[in-house]
Amino acid sequence: MLVKASIAGAIVTNTLFMLGASFLLGGLKHRVQEYNRGSARLQAALLFLATIALLIPSAVAEADSAAGAAFTQKLSLGLAVLLIVTYGLGMLFSLKTHREFFGAAEHADAGETPWPLGLALATLAGVTVLVALVSEVFVESVQEAAVAFGMTPAFVGFIVVALVGAAAEMASAFSGARKNRLDLSVGIALGSASQIALFVAPVLVLLSYVMGPSPMTLQFWPGAVVMMLIATLTATLVTGSGRSAWFVGVLVLMVYLVFAMTLYLLPPGAE
Amino acid sequence: MLVKASIAGAIVTNTLFMLGASFLLGGLKHRVQEYNRGSARLQAALLFLATIALLIPSAVAEADSAAGAAFTQKLSLGLAVLLIVTYGLGMLFSLKTHREFFGAAEHADAGETPWPLGLALATLAGVTVLVALVSEVFVESVQEAAVAFGMTPAFVGFIVVALVGAAAEMASAFSGARKNRLDLSVGIALGSASQIALFVAPVLVLLSYVMGPSPMTLQFWPGAVVMMLIATLTATLVTGSGRSAWFVGVLVLMVYLVFAMTLYLLPPGAE
Amino acid sequence: MLVKASIAGAIVTNTLFMLGASFLLGGLKHRVQEYNRGSARLQAALLFLATIALLIPSAVAEADSAAGAAFTQKLSLGLAVLLIVTYGLGMLFSLKTHREFFGAAEHADAGETPWPLGLALATLAGVTVLVALVSEVFVESVQEAAVAFGMTPAFVGFIVVALVGAAAEMASAFSGARKNRLDLSVGIALGSASQIALFVAPVLVLLSYVMGPSPMTLQFWPGAVVMMLIATLTATLVTGSGRSAWFVGVLVLMVYLVFAMTLYLLPPGAE
Repeated sequence: MLVKASIAGAIVTNTLFMLGASFLLGGLKHRVQEYNRGSARLQAALLFLATIALLIPSAVAEADSAAGAAFTQKLSLGLAVLLIVTYGLGMLFSLKTHREFFGAAEHADAGETPWPLGLALATLAGVTVLVALVSEVFVESVQEAAVAFGMTPAFVGFIVVALVGAAAEMASAFSGARKNRLDLSVGIALGSASQIALFVAPVLVLLSYVMGPSPMTLQFWPGAVVMMLIATLTATLVTGSGRSAWFVGVLVLMVYLVFAMTLYLLPPGAE
Repeated sequence: MLVKASIAGAIVTNTLFMLGASFLLGGLKHRVQEYNRGSARLQAALLFLATIALLIPSAVAEADSAAGAAFTQKLSLGLAVLLIVTYGLGMLFSLKTHREFFGAAEHADAGETPWPLGLALATLAGVTVLVALVSEVFVESVQEAAVAFGMTPAFVGFIVVALVGAAAEMASAFSGARKNRLDLSVGIALGSASQIALFVAPVLVLLSYVMGPSPMTLQFWPGAVVMMLIATLTATLVTGSGRSAWFVGVLVLMVYLVFAMTLYLLPPGAE
Repeated sequence: MLVKASIAGAIVTNTLFMLGASFLLGGLKHRVQEYNRGSARLQAALLFLATIALLIPSAVAEADSAAGAAFTQKLSLGLAVLLIVTYGLGMLFSLKTHREFFGAAEHADAGETPWPLGLALATLAGVTVLVALVSEVFVESVQEAAVAFGMTPAFVGFIVVALVGAAAEMASAFSGARKNRLDLSVGIALGSASQIALFVAPVLVLLSYVMGPSPMTLQFWPGAVVMMLIATLTATLVTGSGRSAWFVGVLVLMVYLVFAMTLYLLPPGAE
């Protein structure tokens, strides 16, 4: 439950808060900022379709009560495999066959020697497992502290944990925006959200069969489904033009604030 | 109830009917019409995100029956404040810092001296309160007349009241379209819909605490939610290209007609 | 029931599988493929709005349980007429007044003399009725064979029948993609999906009053509604840029595979 709220919260926070605050911070310094529209669009499409795939088990379980728990579990397992394969193909595409598609976002790595693919994947997998374990402990202790402050568990899982967890990436994204390199900020925001949907979430499902007390499914709380959909649709919408000003950031942050407010006010029994 | 139906109806009618009829009327006279894509996109994004924010209380109440009336009321109040702040920032953006963003739509005002901001806001607030009071009376008398003609209350609230209420703006929008100045038509249609979502609806919520018999929430009938979402998504979709021909107008009007037909046929007890 | 599953399946399959496989097959041969963005956008908008109109009766029936069967039937009938009128206007637009809007997709027919409109419409209507009759028989025999192989009826209706039924169009679309003429592929994929939503489905409703045992409505299984919406939204999203590479095809096919997997695993009683 906690893990699933963190997954949903991370997608929503990366997409709305990181992107919105980048637009706002960049826009307060630079009148109008331009970025690579083609690359942003592809990343937004990747994120949107990954999120939709992630939400199918919840949508079916919602739409059709005859679809039972066994069905949801099998579907989650198959979906996890499919998402990881898509993630792998996406890596192949962006790192091997079509490097130039992700345009300016890459300049950041200029000069660095790329890692061998095997090593990169192994490290990624290792880090993910570590993060999963650590975040479980982390989430629980944050949870206790926050509840002591009178915050609802939903607010903590979605907002507080996600904001703390993405602090490092946010620093990079905001710094990119201030330096008028929005390609970097958009790439980090959409890229880390996609990574959670396409890699972290399915890996956690697979790991739950090896390590967990019981298999984890990809069925989310309906409210989380709505928020993830709106968040990724918003990102798709605002990155389609390749141009930004401060008010675009305000709009995206407004959607985020509405979500945060909803979760803050939600009575604890509701989720 | 009546007021909420009018809000939803005004958003749907301005977005679909005013926009669609402008495209159709303009397209029948001019083969292909071009307009400022960047400005239309920003306005459509503003409208879409404002509508989404407006619909969150309804979505949560629908998705989660444990969220009670007290929650919906607090959320509506917080949301109203957030929407009005966003509206204010949007005014600042479009009138002060980034006037040129709204491009051709402004030529209409060339030559006019802009009002001082304070006066403009006070007038706007006054007019809104007046309209709210008048429309309550107006809606009730139209209601009685229409029911006598055998129309359902839902059809009257959504369609008839909204069409009559927006008559003046429609005249301007259509005249702009005939003169091949679609920027004007798109700006009026999307702008007045945004104004309802970002300003009129939240002001009515705040006023209901001062004047109303009981506080008004922002929880809408699920059918109204679906229609507002589809209407604003349609507007986003068709204004993304900056180009129009008569058939685009037919498509948008078709969606409107489907809604009107649905409301006309809906049994009175359903809403 | 079978017929409705075939309609939904054909829209989903044409939109996702035909389009995705065209992007993938073309992308494996050509590094980056460009196509007419304006034309693709108009076709995607047409498909999306037609699908939305088609889904209104299901959405209302879902949102409002007080809307009874009589309402759904009247609404379906009115909607069918509206969709056919829109289809006719679309033909007028694309064949008469604005031929050049559908750009490169037309080069395929260069050299052919266009049919007289009356003859074309009569043939179309005749073929449609024929297809409806044949597919009823076809669907039933495929059904029996597939159930013998252990496939669920939902999977057969949505996936197997739709893939077999669109085989000829797929051959053309894939061949166009390999020849770097994606305009052709996109036109065929979106065009045949639109034709089903705007023409085949409403004609079947009208025919059901003349021929069928009982009037057919346009109320679909909620799962089918979700899939059609996602499929057409996906098509709108990926065709907006006018540019494609192999990974875009992978993404679209991933969404299709998720649907196919869901239907394959769905317990038979669920639909």
